[in-house]
Amino acid sequence: MIKIGIYGYGNLGRGVEAAVKKNPDMELVAVFTRRDPKDLKIATKTAEVVSSKNVFDYKDKIDVLVIAGGSATDLPEMTPALVEGFNVIDSFDTHANVPTHFKNVDKAAKATGHIGFISCGWDPGMFSLNRAIMQAILPDGKDYTFWGKGVSQGHSDAIRRIEGVIDARQYTIPVDSALEAVRSGANPELTTRQKHTRECFVVAKDPKDYDRIEREIKEMPNYFSDYDTTVHFITLEELKKNHNGIPHGGFVIRSGKTSDDVKHVIEYSLKLDSNPEFTGSVIVAYARAVYRMSQRGENGARTVFDVAPKDIQTVSYEDLLAHTL
Amino acid sequence: MIKIGIYGYGNLGRGVEAAVKKNPDMELVAVFTRRDPKDLKIATKTAEVVSSKNVFDYKDKIDVLVIAGGSATDLPEMTPALVEGFNVIDSFDTHANVPTHFKNVDKAAKATGHIGFISCGWDPGMFSLNRAIMQAILPDGKDYTFWGKGVSQGHSDAIRRIEGVIDARQYTIPVDSALEAVRSGANPELTTRQKHTRECFVVAKDPKDYDRIEREIKEMPNYFSDYDTTVHFITLEELKKNHNGIPHGGFVIRSGKTSDDVKHVIEYSLKLDSNPEFTGSVIVAYARAVYRMSQRGENGARTVFDVAPKDIQTVSYEDLLAHTL
Repeated sequence: MIKIGIYGYGNLGRGVEAAVKKNPDMELVAVFTRRDPKDLKIATKTAEVVSSKNVFDYKDKIDVLVIAGGSATDLPEMTPALVEGFNVIDSFDTHANVPTHFKNVDKAAKATGHIGFISCGWDPGMFSLNRAIMQAILPDGKDYTFWGKGVSQGHSDAIRRIEGVIDARQYTIPVDSALEAVRSGANPELTTRQKHTRECFVVAKDPKDYDRIEREIKEMPNYFSDYDTTVHFITLEELKKNHNGIPHGGFVIRSGKTSDDVKHVIEYSLKLDSNPEFTGSVIVAYARAVYRMSQRGENGARTVFDVAPKDIQTVSYEDLLAHTL
Repeated sequence: MIKIGIYGYGNLGRGVEAAVKKNPDMELVAVFTRRDPKDLKIATKTAEVVSSKNVFDYKDKIDVLVIAGGSATDLPEMTPALVEGFNVIDSFDTHANVPTHFKNVDKAAKATGHIGFISCGWDPGMFSLNRAIMQAILPDGKDYTFWGKGVSQGHSDAIRRIEGVIDARQYTIPVDSALEAVRSGANPELTTRQKHTRECFVVAKDPKDYDRIEREIKEMPNYFSDYDTTVHFITLEELKKNHNGIPHGGFVIRSGKTSDDVKHVIEYSLKLDSNPEFTGSVIVAYARAVYRMSQRGENGARTVFDVAPKDIQTVSYEDLLAHTL
């Protein structure tokens, strides 16, 4: 059994916990929390709840520690610090800062002989893997990533910070005509506005503020001003009833040519009922690879680009040859 | 430059040749043919055309030899024989015989210190890779493979063997309602007939034979009798004008649950103008991995399951981190 620890017990931590249950070669040993452990109930009866302050006491009891923290401030600190005691895996998703995060984790991981796997999940993660493979097998081409339909946590938060807003949910939606243009192999040049629309469901204190709130949303730089945005005002009851889930998904599509007038289109897509549960499920499969790399004596930072598909499997290589190839 | 040889110059051999042109780190050194080399014109001016009898004279001039032969009789003999002199890659696609072929190639490859990469292309190949990864990241689920719309060479050949048939083209077509049922996450049980239909375009000598030919096609065991099959009789001119290409493609879809009532659907699809050119393009990317494995001193049989995505790239790992992750 591969012994798993989870550091952080928000949506993602619970998603990882659910995934461990689906993998018979793994067991959850402990959940580490910044809260008072007495106040935290977890779903796994056999696992301990431990204060994050005491995590290093578990150095010899855990094979792979999943760090379920946020990319903005948690992971840049946590991953390099925790890899000093553990093989770790995180879901760092600030694309622009990946090279720096990789370097920091690599240095700390090599110094202590651990594996520090970063940026696992679906984007970065499965989408990255697919982009990389598509680019290699169709070098003369162009790829496109579309996200949604799904809830963007960052954009929902941005709306909640507007004065007079009680709660909000923002959906990112790919534009069908853009998807179709890409699928046709036309390799179109698409602006931000042409690729996605944004739909917002907002609960506000006072209907008198509706116009101002809608304007503030639509004009918000970076988040909304470059998009066609729709705003719906609803009641808190409606929000809780109809927008309680965290669905997401998206598309990676590459089209390219192998010779004159000979085109090919490759498409990978995800339709997810729960973003954190699916992310957790990907992380747990790659935690298996982390364990195996470590068992082979490897160390340093790793990503999905380093992993041969056989290393995330529960079935044997012979089974793969006979049933999956 | 990675020095490539191509053994066999049919549709696939020409597809590999086209792909080498798109990869700046590779050069085609020689094409080996069972025909008289004087009678063969190839597209690459800088490459030699050599009799297949003399292939072993090129042992030290080629890094990876692509074996572009058929799976029924060529590859089971050729791949174990040629791996004694070369790192090789083939597209062996008789799924049921993969374990035996792997074993034979592995033994010969290890005896001479080469890499013998088998079953590369899209199915087996990209579809296998996707099935394997999907199974690992969604263990509680079920996957489905659909082929088409595309030309099945084997089925077209089977029609041509019927008395009175001059030429024929058979398209395998996935059934839309089955695709939609799978995409819904319903995990349906689907019969052969429910998954695909077959559409045949036939040129016959004599209209008097149309009824008999249509009946013989529709009742042909294994090939057609388990499918809803449509037969169209057309002229040779129409066949050449409208059915000259070798398009293909298909879908791998897995749906599964991460907890009660929480479903996810993963889909990978290909839409290919030319089956052999796309297959050639995948082979060439994995030939790069063969070369790198060999440079690291590895030997034995390999498949897509053994290859980390970084090993098929022309770009550096740093580039992948910065632009693709």
